[in-house]
Amino acid sequence: MPASDPAVQSLSFDDLTHLLRQIFLRHGTSAEVADILAHNCATAQRDGAHSHGTFRIPGYLSTLASGWVDGKARPQVEEVASGYVAVDAAGGFAQPALAAARGLLVSKAREAGIAVLAIRNSHHFAALWPDVEPFAAEGLVALSVVNSMTCVVPHGGTKPLFGTNPIAFAAPCAGKDPLVFDMATSALAHGDVQIAARAGHPVPVGAGIDKHGQPTTDPAAILDGGALLPFGGHKGSALSMMVELLSAALTGGNFSFEFDWTRHPGAQTPWTGQLIIVIDPDKRAGQNFAERSRELVERMHEAGQSRLSGDRRYRQRALATTQGISMPVEELERLRALAGE
Amino acid sequence: MPASDPAVQSLSFDDLTHLLRQIFLRHGTSAEVADILAHNCATAQRDGAHSHGTFRIPGYLSTLASGWVDGKARPQVEEVASGYVAVDAAGGFAQPALAAARGLLVSKAREAGIAVLAIRNSHHFAALWPDVEPFAAEGLVALSVVNSMTCVVPHGGTKPLFGTNPIAFAAPCAGKDPLVFDMATSALAHGDVQIAARAGHPVPVGAGIDKHGQPTTDPAAILDGGALLPFGGHKGSALSMMVELLSAALTGGNFSFEFDWTRHPGAQTPWTGQLIIVIDPDKRAGQNFAERSRELVERMHEAGQSRLSGDRRYRQRALATTQGISMPVEELERLRALAGE
Repeated sequence: MPASDPAVQSLSFDDLTHLLRQIFLRHGTSAEVADILAHNCATAQRDGAHSHGTFRIPGYLSTLASGWVDGKARPQVEEVASGYVAVDAAGGFAQPALAAARGLLVSKAREAGIAVLAIRNSHHFAALWPDVEPFAAEGLVALSVVNSMTCVVPHGGTKPLFGTNPIAFAAPCAGKDPLVFDMATSALAHGDVQIAARAGHPVPVGAGIDKHGQPTTDPAAILDGGALLPFGGHKGSALSMMVELLSAALTGGNFSFEFDWTRHPGAQTPWTGQLIIVIDPDKRAGQNFAERSRELVERMHEAGQSRLSGDRRYRQRALATTQGISMPVEELERLRALAGE
Repeated sequence: MPASDPAVQSLSFDDLTHLLRQIFLRHGTSAEVADILAHNCATAQRDGAHSHGTFRIPGYLSTLASGWVDGKARPQVEEVASGYVAVDAAGGFAQPALAAARGLLVSKAREAGIAVLAIRNSHHFAALWPDVEPFAAEGLVALSVVNSMTCVVPHGGTKPLFGTNPIAFAAPCAGKDPLVFDMATSALAHGDVQIAARAGHPVPVGAGIDKHGQPTTDPAAILDGGALLPFGGHKGSALSMMVELLSAALTGGNFSFEFDWTRHPGAQTPWTGQLIIVIDPDKRAGQNFAERSRELVERMHEAGQSRLSGDRRYRQRALATTQGISMPVEELERLRALAGE
């Protein structure tokens, strides 16, 4: 959209972050939580990941208003073992819990070569790639999984059980942006179904079923008592099971099907757990992981893969740095009203 | 096949292991390597995983005869950090390298909560689940990846680059067999393509392309200069990239496209690397991972998923324990001849 379009306005990353911070503060979060969620949400918007950008603000606010999530929770970090950190997010968001434990996690990974962070009692309502990308920017390899809320039918089953249960991975790449992917283990991410429903677009065949268990390409039918299917048949389903085990059974968090928010109308955030594994790839003498990573990427390009996961985000990010973040004026006005401006 | 079928003979797991051990010993491996490979191969055959059972023996032997792999290699274990073990497999098989480092890996995982084993300079020609299942039998959670040899086209590309690059996961489950999966990140495993080619059966649509880059369901066309596709489109492809990074860039092993065996006619084993991450799920006080794991499985059954990954293997294993392992007489005679019996 050209900057001269009267229906669109550009603003800087810092201005958008500031605006979102005001919104969170005004709707019941602590200053620390507002800082972290605003940065996270503005990052997604800046990078063109719109299903996790300002599109999520109404969901955050209705959840905060419902009393389902504690916007002022203080995460409790526990040093479990030389490679193991646990955090009780205390019914708050997962990102502040990660932020509270991150320094300890990184120092353990650098010391032991590998370390794990187990977050429980947490609400994750954002994309997963912003959680792992910063580790790769520091030269570390990171893998994270988070379970969510029942909306995916296990392969061969008839009723939804799993969440969309994404897996995210990040690795450094010499002289380039980190290699990062973030994939729902469902055929589609929940945010993409919501976006399609709002836009009135169909979703691909094989993505979901309606409330009668019949295949459908209507996103509204998937959201209205229907369910998503795993990606890649039994393989995606097995990965989704792994995500439940690592995010909930291992951390002490809820499975995607365990929480009951019926007494909190307006609640939208899954109350589950998250696992992050961080490896220091340069622990072993003589290694140069990032150079090897670049060799692989160059060969992938030679094999004809022109676009890698994350490329679109980095392009959008570069664009936003020079031109600002373009947003519909109507959307900005809504956000400013929510911020009390 | 009924045991009275004259073309089929039953033998015990121990007898099959002994027979395979004799074959390996007679074709250039050390006693230690023969023990480990025979047990591995007999395990696959017993559990009905035929693409990695005795079907693999000719490939092992032609590779040993070619001088491509060192059947007497002595793996060198390095204690890199409190959570990090590396092994130089010294050009031998991966399984003896894992066996040499396993005790140290487990003690580190129990002490630190998590530990990683990086195997390099190794040949992996077997299934991956036998590497992870024993950790779960000890109450640990294990994740392993191994890269292989160029035969999979990255998503959106035109030429093969990745290996079939499997991911295997194992977790304990209270009162039940461990939850284990082992999935190629290609649409089909290489062994399954070979089995289909030998049987003259087509492979599913979307599994591969022929040497002209055209989609095909002919396994012979895939093997003859064609290539496999990743499972699940861009997601399977991203996972395959991750497997290359973790198995090769991180360990110091070869990428799937890096080794050149043209001077070793008959060589079939990929000379790459393998990564294994082991987590102690009961490190955190008050946890009971295996009970939670069972809860999940029960809910998966209630959701209508009747069969889990690994179920078929456990059923075949139980059958073999009571009735022995049924094998075609012709196949057994070939094996006995190879063993010099």
